Amino acid sequence: MNVASFVPKQKTLMGPGPSDVSSRVLQAMAKPTIGHLDPDFVGFMNEVQSLLRYAFKTENEVCFPISAPGSAGMEACFVNLVEPGEEVIICQNGVFGMRMQSIVERIGAKPILVKDDWGKAVDPQKVEDAFKNNPNAKLLAFVHAETSTGACSDAKAIAAIAKQNDCLSIVDTVTSLGGCPLEVDGWGLDAVYSGSQKCLSAPPGLSPVTFSERAVAKLKARKSQVPSWFLDFNLVLNYWDDKEKTRSYHHTAPVNALYGLRESLVILQEEGLESSWKRHRERHIELREGLVKMGFEFLVAEGDRLPQLNAVRLPAGADDAALRSYLLDNFQLEVGAGLGPLAGKILRIGLMGYAANKKNIAILLGALDSYFADSPR
Amino acid sequence: MNVASFVPKQKTLMGPGPSDVSSRVLQAMAKPTIGHLDPDFVGFMNEVQSLLRYAFKTENEVCFPISAPGSAGMEACFVNLVEPGEEVIICQNGVFGMRMQSIVERIGAKPILVKDDWGKAVDPQKVEDAFKNNPNAKLLAFVHAETSTGACSDAKAIAAIAKQNDCLSIVDTVTSLGGCPLEVDGWGLDAVYSGSQKCLSAPPGLSPVTFSERAVAKLKARKSQVPSWFLDFNLVLNYWDDKEKTRSYHHTAPVNALYGLRESLVILQEEGLESSWKRHRERHIELREGLVKMGFEFLVAEGDRLPQLNAVRLPAGADDAALRSYLLDNFQLEVGAGLGPLAGKILRIGLMGYAANKKNIAILLGALDSYFADSPR
Repeated sequence: MNVASFVPKQKTLMGPGPSDVSSRVLQAMAKPTIGHLDPDFVGFMNEVQSLLRYAFKTENEVCFPISAPGSAGMEACFVNLVEPGEEVIICQNGVFGMRMQSIVERIGAKPILVKDDWGKAVDPQKVEDAFKNNPNAKLLAFVHAETSTGACSDAKAIAAIAKQNDCLSIVDTVTSLGGCPLEVDGWGLDAVYSGSQKCLSAPPGLSPVTFSERAVAKLKARKSQVPSWFLDFNLVLNYWDDKEKTRSYHHTAPVNALYGLRESLVILQEEGLESSWKRHRERHIELREGLVKMGFEFLVAEGDRLPQLNAVRLPAGADDAALRSYLLDNFQLEVGAGLGPLAGKILRIGLMGYAANKKNIAILLGALDSYFADSPR
Repeated sequence: MNVASFVPKQKTLMGPGPSDVSSRVLQAMAKPTIGHLDPDFVGFMNEVQSLLRYAFKTENEVCFPISAPGSAGMEACFVNLVEPGEEVIICQNGVFGMRMQSIVERIGAKPILVKDDWGKAVDPQKVEDAFKNNPNAKLLAFVHAETSTGACSDAKAIAAIAKQNDCLSIVDTVTSLGGCPLEVDGWGLDAVYSGSQKCLSAPPGLSPVTFSERAVAKLKARKSQVPSWFLDFNLVLNYWDDKEKTRSYHHTAPVNALYGLRESLVILQEEGLESSWKRHRERHIELREGLVKMGFEFLVAEGDRLPQLNAVRLPAGADDAALRSYLLDNFQLEVGAGLGPLAGKILRIGLMGYAANKKNIAILLGALDSYFADSPR
């Protein structure tokens, strides 16, 4: 065995994430590693938390990045807030609602499913009905921006139903944070997790998360121990929580990955959150125009579309894998495949964070043009 | 709020980890992000796995880095291999054996504790006795290199006792991997986890792990579901396992962090594993000589000392926090504090990976000299 250093090619990442990472963020990750208990790092952490509160639009005290990808952020919300035997209403309209179900089952709690077709937004009426039929439910979980389909659900309306029923909400904002309107406090969301590699355009591996006071109260009132040691917020917050101005060792924080996330949040702050939302929206409209002109149809109805994740149906006869390989081989351009029932039927075109720019749209439309010119339909 | 980019100072990291990261590894992390399902990344992953097999001295098929820090690697081994109600013998001679106990309790399994004093190696005779007294035990867990004390236990002898009793072994090699002799296959270890930020000198955030065939068989024969979705190897291995030559999406791999880990493993391969062990040993002897000359006493008996983690008693009257602040403020030098019963009583001086060099020893000895010259004893 004699393995050489890896030199990745420069790609254009327009799939469902990771999205293109700017050289500024990449260079931040290459800064010298310092200790995770270094006084300089304590100040650094406070700033990461402030920047995340800005991005989430929250004043929540509990707001920090989990040292693992978005999937671990999802698991963290459930294992901290759900106790065995509790009923949890889960909205399923894509891959990530299914994952929520699996996590709830592993906890020994009872998932109650509210199903909508893949590509549709969650129907608030069905959520109301679920509460009527399950008055003992303790939590409601749903995905704000379904990465597997590109559908955006009305998080404000759905969370309000949870609150009316005296329930907490767990909300997946992996693909929405930074890319489209999201207001944790304004909408009254309780436990919210995201990912670093979507509209923040930091490398994958970290999961920003925030808990409302109501969520913290449920955590503190648990009768059973949190089943995961690594994700137990009672322990993790001794490290991240600033009240005592000390940092107790829990696990070694991923220092350089946090450098990258922090720089991506500084960039978001410089642009302004609302300006970032607007840019995603504007680029989406430009992309849409180009795709529709080429004959593509969107999977999701216009009002429910995420600007940052554009799911379009493959034209009849087009070979999904061949198309994606062509784009990757000839244009170093990544777009995403469909998942589950949508496998082979859609392309998922991301316009996330740093990647939501006019140049990328030109590359994508040019590459698709080229493919269809080269390939028999 | 207006947060500027973070510019960390260049430090010398001689604590219990993270250790100094070379500029080669830092620059690898700044390479362009590619997709986690990109065909180029599939080849990359195979090479990471080969390099890890080399470092662990194993032919195990299951050998990959978990997308989270070493603590998650520990939890992964337990949640995959331990079922509720099972008896697990846990050796405790420092912080990490205590963490194992907490994880086992959260699973609903029964920890059986084998205790040795902090700073001592695990006593194999006590392990034999524990098996005699608990014939139903299914697993034995212990720490090879106790990061909280600097004690090295005889992993070969202890794992052999487990095997004689038809039990699997779970072995913490967070601080040993790459820094002192470790032979996963030669010693018959079953489930072994480590961390990226110690003797591999990659940034913190990843946990290399390997499972023997016996461990995989226990996983496959489980009656209950693995309690963690994120750490369920039945799912994770659909992504990392190469048998089908396809990669099924589980979670988004931390691409750039893996670039860093891979480069650190390439560097280890270039130096040669045994040469790296020898270098750690030689630098340890040089450091020891200097520390003894200054009047320091080692916590751990000579035969059980880890070369890469040197725990020395603080001289009478020396103020732990003042000393460490002095080193950090005046020499940008980090050393570690004692934990638990050793808090305020010892310094933990790391000589790990890239940091195990003559220059660092000179800085450390010079800095300590300077402190004791400046400070009243």
